[in-house]
Amino acid sequence: MFGANFLQSDRPDMIARVSFVTPRQRTPLRSLTVSFILPFIVKYGGLEFRDIELLKLKYKIWQTLEKDPLFAHNAVTPTVEEQKRITQLQLKKINDYKFHTKEMVNSSYSRRTRTIMTINEAVQSLNPSVSVKMAIGIYLFSNALLSLGTERHHKFYESTFVERETLASFALTEIAHGSDARLMRTTATYDPQSKQFVIHTPDFEAAKCWVGNLGRTCTHTLLFAQLITPDGTNHGLHGFLVPIRNPETLETYPGLIVGDMSEKIGVNGIDNGFIMFNQYRIPRENLLNRTADVTEEGIYESSFSDPSKILGAALENLSAGRIGIMQESCHSIASAVTIAIRYAATRAQFGERDNEISLIEYQLHQWRLFGYVAAAVVFRMYIENFSRVYLSIVEKSNAGMKVDNLSEAVSEIHAMVSCSKPLLTWTVLSAAQQCREACGGHGYLKCSNLGDIRSNHEATVTYEGDNNVLSQQTGNWLLRQFHSARNGGTVDSPLNTVTFLMDWEKWIAVRFRCSRTDELKTREFITTTYRWLICYLLIQTHEKYEAELAKGLSKFEARAKSQVYKWKELTKTYAEYLAIIFFLESLDKKEPSLQPVLTKLFCLYGLWSLDQHLVELYQGGYSQGESLARLLREAILELCGELKGEVVSVVDALAPTDFVLNSVLGKSDGNLYQNIQKAFFSHPGAFERAPWWREVVTIPKSKI
Amino acid sequence: MFGANFLQSDRPDMIARVSFVTPRQRTPLRSLTVSFILPFIVKYGGLEFRDIELLKLKYKIWQTLEKDPLFAHNAVTPTVEEQKRITQLQLKKINDYKFHTKEMVNSSYSRRTRTIMTINEAVQSLNPSVSVKMAIGIYLFSNALLSLGTERHHKFYESTFVERETLASFALTEIAHGSDARLMRTTATYDPQSKQFVIHTPDFEAAKCWVGNLGRTCTHTLLFAQLITPDGTNHGLHGFLVPIRNPETLETYPGLIVGDMSEKIGVNGIDNGFIMFNQYRIPRENLLNRTADVTEEGIYESSFSDPSKILGAALENLSAGRIGIMQESCHSIASAVTIAIRYAATRAQFGERDNEISLIEYQLHQWRLFGYVAAAVVFRMYIENFSRVYLSIVEKSNAGMKVDNLSEAVSEIHAMVSCSKPLLTWTVLSAAQQCREACGGHGYLKCSNLGDIRSNHEATVTYEGDNNVLSQQTGNWLLRQFHSARNGGTVDSPLNTVTFLMDWEKWIAVRFRCSRTDELKTREFITTTYRWLICYLLIQTHEKYEAELAKGLSKFEARAKSQVYKWKELTKTYAEYLAIIFFLESLDKKEPSLQPVLTKLFCLYGLWSLDQHLVELYQGGYSQGESLARLLREAILELCGELKGEVVSVVDALAPTDFVLNSVLGKSDGNLYQNIQKAFFSHPGAFERAPWWREVVTIPKSKI
Repeated sequence: MFGANFLQSDRPDMIARVSFVTPRQRTPLRSLTVSFILPFIVKYGGLEFRDIELLKLKYKIWQTLEKDPLFAHNAVTPTVEEQKRITQLQLKKINDYKFHTKEMVNSSYSRRTRTIMTINEAVQSLNPSVSVKMAIGIYLFSNALLSLGTERHHKFYESTFVERETLASFALTEIAHGSDARLMRTTATYDPQSKQFVIHTPDFEAAKCWVGNLGRTCTHTLLFAQLITPDGTNHGLHGFLVPIRNPETLETYPGLIVGDMSEKIGVNGIDNGFIMFNQYRIPRENLLNRTADVTEEGIYESSFSDPSKILGAALENLSAGRIGIMQESCHSIASAVTIAIRYAATRAQFGERDNEISLIEYQLHQWRLFGYVAAAVVFRMYIENFSRVYLSIVEKSNAGMKVDNLSEAVSEIHAMVSCSKPLLTWTVLSAAQQCREACGGHGYLKCSNLGDIRSNHEATVTYEGDNNVLSQQTGNWLLRQFHSARNGGTVDSPLNTVTFLMDWEKWIAVRFRCSRTDELKTREFITTTYRWLICYLLIQTHEKYEAELAKGLSKFEARAKSQVYKWKELTKTYAEYLAIIFFLESLDKKEPSLQPVLTKLFCLYGLWSLDQHLVELYQGGYSQGESLARLLREAILELCGELKGEVVSVVDALAPTDFVLNSVLGKSDGNLYQNIQKAFFSHPGAFERAPWWREVVTIPKSKI
Repeated sequence: MFGANFLQSDRPDMIARVSFVTPRQRTPLRSLTVSFILPFIVKYGGLEFRDIELLKLKYKIWQTLEKDPLFAHNAVTPTVEEQKRITQLQLKKINDYKFHTKEMVNSSYSRRTRTIMTINEAVQSLNPSVSVKMAIGIYLFSNALLSLGTERHHKFYESTFVERETLASFALTEIAHGSDARLMRTTATYDPQSKQFVIHTPDFEAAKCWVGNLGRTCTHTLLFAQLITPDGTNHGLHGFLVPIRNPETLETYPGLIVGDMSEKIGVNGIDNGFIMFNQYRIPRENLLNRTADVTEEGIYESSFSDPSKILGAALENLSAGRIGIMQESCHSIASAVTIAIRYAATRAQFGERDNEISLIEYQLHQWRLFGYVAAAVVFRMYIENFSRVYLSIVEKSNAGMKVDNLSEAVSEIHAMVSCSKPLLTWTVLSAAQQCREACGGHGYLKCSNLGDIRSNHEATVTYEGDNNVLSQQTGNWLLRQFHSARNGGTVDSPLNTVTFLMDWEKWIAVRFRCSRTDELKTREFITTTYRWLICYLLIQTHEKYEAELAKGLSKFEARAKSQVYKWKELTKTYAEYLAIIFFLESLDKKEPSLQPVLTKLFCLYGLWSLDQHLVELYQGGYSQGESLARLLREAILELCGELKGEVVSVVDALAPTDFVLNSVLGKSDGNLYQNIQKAFFSHPGAFERAPWWREVVTIPKSKI
């Protein structure tokens, strides 16, 4: 049965440790394992009843791949070349397993997408490079064909998404232009004589780069280039389907300079490539022509008049990618905290009268880790809930059903994604780092897996929109809503995330009035304080921006001068608020027995996040004097203490299987040192004399 | 001439970018290059006139190794095995180069040590694994022989430090005990029959581990084990010289299980090993017997009565290691900020009317990076100044000269080192991360070198004392001084770092009274605020600790409950204060032309650090209302703006040579994209078809 590994684990060592050191606070960990985790997994890990199938699929994938030697873990990192080979073979094998059943392929958009996301998550937690290859080369590509292309491109959709014969790529970023897509310099000039587009790269700075799958494997790329008609007009960026390699030989076609970008900090299984086009010709039909086309004679015909809108439609496709990143991030943080918490429960150090104490007993250690455990739970429920809302809107819209305020909802979702992807990916990055440090030297071993989790995850803070650049877009939207609310207009928030701005004067008037920590450990305190904060930061950002404009700066300059401490802080705060309100919405649907622990985790996440905003709370007059900081921090430490007995069970519920977790420090059996010993002793060559000993030996003048 | 590479670089591209985008603020970068950098290097990089020789030595090492193919950089990370081989060969070659001249070996302690540190720094910035191997296997080992051993161990000193025939290791940490050395379980039991010590490891949890050089290469180890006399008495940890391998064959001796710990997150050139002893016998004379000995008959004779003092004497040796780590950290942060600042000056993105703007023009980008540039400068001058003080005290003490308040000075230095190593290593870790992110996707390339700088550096937050554990020792000392001051006693601070606590009532009464940013950008404001903060945190920590004691907790428990927000914050604040006051002392000796830029960097570092303490400043009543946070943050942003024109020159002064920096993004010529192109195009196999194409090719059902 799926999840059985959690139930069968005895973890005698872990239980012994925890109960040994604090006999009076002994937690019935074993009974919790039975009574608490099962519903926790079913209701929380997999969520609602109708999602059991997806959870089963995830475990089926994990169990299938665990039995396949091609997916066995390597004790030593293979060479970059070998990683690429293994990754490509694994991708092929996963396609062959056909986890994407015919039934799934033909199911509703929402169902299909959630299945894809589940497959992606399952694969990502085993080998992130495979899931990125798959996400870019199959899902993003075929999705883009559907939304940007027309019937004539459908065969590519079939061969990529259904038959899995084609692996594609996505060529947007150029060497000198990443975040600023407007200034891309690759051109696609229409030639009416031959009825072809001529793709050209003016120089190396305009070479497309960071194109996943392009370095060695893809046969096609979806290229974004400036479309130029015979009259010399530049119609802006458009998508083109461009053949790159002969699928039978994987040789690149003449007219292309295609190279592999070689080694990176992580995800080295992906063959990121760069490409330069030398007057490279493709048929006219390869333009993805849903929103605009060029006639055989070379006349540009568009259903939009503004090229930036066309681009906007094209880039809207990227939301799915960002949501995918957030889901993967939820898995990465779950793995990281599982390893660190299990290690903390089994590793003892210091104590009195030679009674050593588990690390988890130390308040400092709890404080370092439990906030991230809470974040792991809150983020997962947030993203699960948000994905559902997002998918249902897209589904309705695709089906031509009426969605109220569709364009407002799209703006709101874009604003939400643009700040949430930064919040999640940054938080997970620091979680992975903190978990590594909390496992001390042993955490620095490759076999802890914390290094690889971190290095592979790190790319996400940069790709699919650099976090610092991306989150600025949220600020634009928030300021627009606030501006409207201040001027008696409406707030366009169909998802109801900032409707409260209509009453901004009420929220900004709230003051801190608590005198006991209990009063802070409530959803009311946390949501109210967040609303105050968002209003305060909106006012501050707005005033700063207006002041810069008043000095004569342009909008662009004024915005650049309003980022630090204002805009940036505002978007981060809003993202935390989103996680909180979406979590609360899900929480209310959980069965009562789960609510206490989830509520504690919620409060910890909320207060732990507010701790980072205390300066603004003081600066803005929400409170004066010492009590706010004191009570808030006391409440955090109380929650750490309250969660100590449950945190091992919580990570058990979050954790993947031991095979997937792949950490010698985090196995569910709790036999920490036996597992380390096994890893050390079975390591290839561990006890051998260095093969190169002859080269380095020094014969001493006199034997010592 | 050394440093000439800075002066010859024209950086036309960098100058063009910077001057292009802000014509009105154009900085005479070229003239700065000539007039500003030379004195900056000589006076600041290399410091005082008598240190020119050390600076020359560093450049001599860099230039020598640049010409040696063995030290050529690898475009792709070699296998872990190959990294170990190369590292050991490089170590051997460096020994052969005899940078450690006879003259140096015979010079004064202080001179000798500073030369060793210079060699170490020069090597570390090229290959950190080599410098760690050298630091542990040669310097720490031979130092320990001098301080723990007697004449009979001198031949080992000769063969290690002078002849470089022996490579040793340092075996302290056990699998189950790292930070808590008291509970180490490896025993050395004296056998009077054979006049030998019998070394034994009871089980795997007591195996020594993380022993650098032990996995493959060392011939001896300095082992710390519980010394047990025939009467069964355990006399605590002692140091023993233990042969591990036959130096002629590198085969381990019978009775030992020695294994290599395999792959780690970084510094994979070091062969970290584990070892288990099976009744392994060594001669009685191998006990390092400066402070205690065992007679032939098995009687323990000690000049100290308290075993913990013996241990204290043994571990005092580790200070040099921690100072070495801090010096290396200064190099790592210098390299990281150099890469990110040069990239920021040459990389343009966004702008108005297609006039793209260099990243360095963006306030957000300045704010993300300039604080770390300031930290790099402040840390280097702090550690340089502090090392000098430290070495002169050790030298005098070694020479038997009278040092006033020697034991108090030793305590103070230990307190300083125990919080400064955490501050520096953590700051450098986050600097490396921020620099990587600030270089976007290109920073994620291995050839940016930011990944390797980060991964190799990361170990320093854990080794030589885990940062979280180590810094607690500083708190002990600070609280002792404060307790004494409050009770009318003296403050034992021969280095004058906390003498101000005598007037703690005066400092804690200070209140924020500024109304203009100018008033904050002063050494008076910064040092005064730090003194207030330290007093406040001392009071808070003391009260918390006393309150926990009053609840009936033991000292151990009370201390554990006083870490978060109190003890931990206190020691961090004190470490920042140390950096500030030692920097200021050096600053006053610099020539007047350098003072403006150094003062700006100082103010930025001070205010940027205080920004992280605003909560305590509000909570403790140092200020109320919005002006403190507003002015402090405005001052930081003003300083960023003021430094924009000088920051490229500042990093030029901090930077090593291009060969050492080894970053395609950070070359001093400023030809960013040409350098990237060269790296991509010359990469082995970049344009080849994947060697494994036959295994992955998919023949489509129908050709597309």
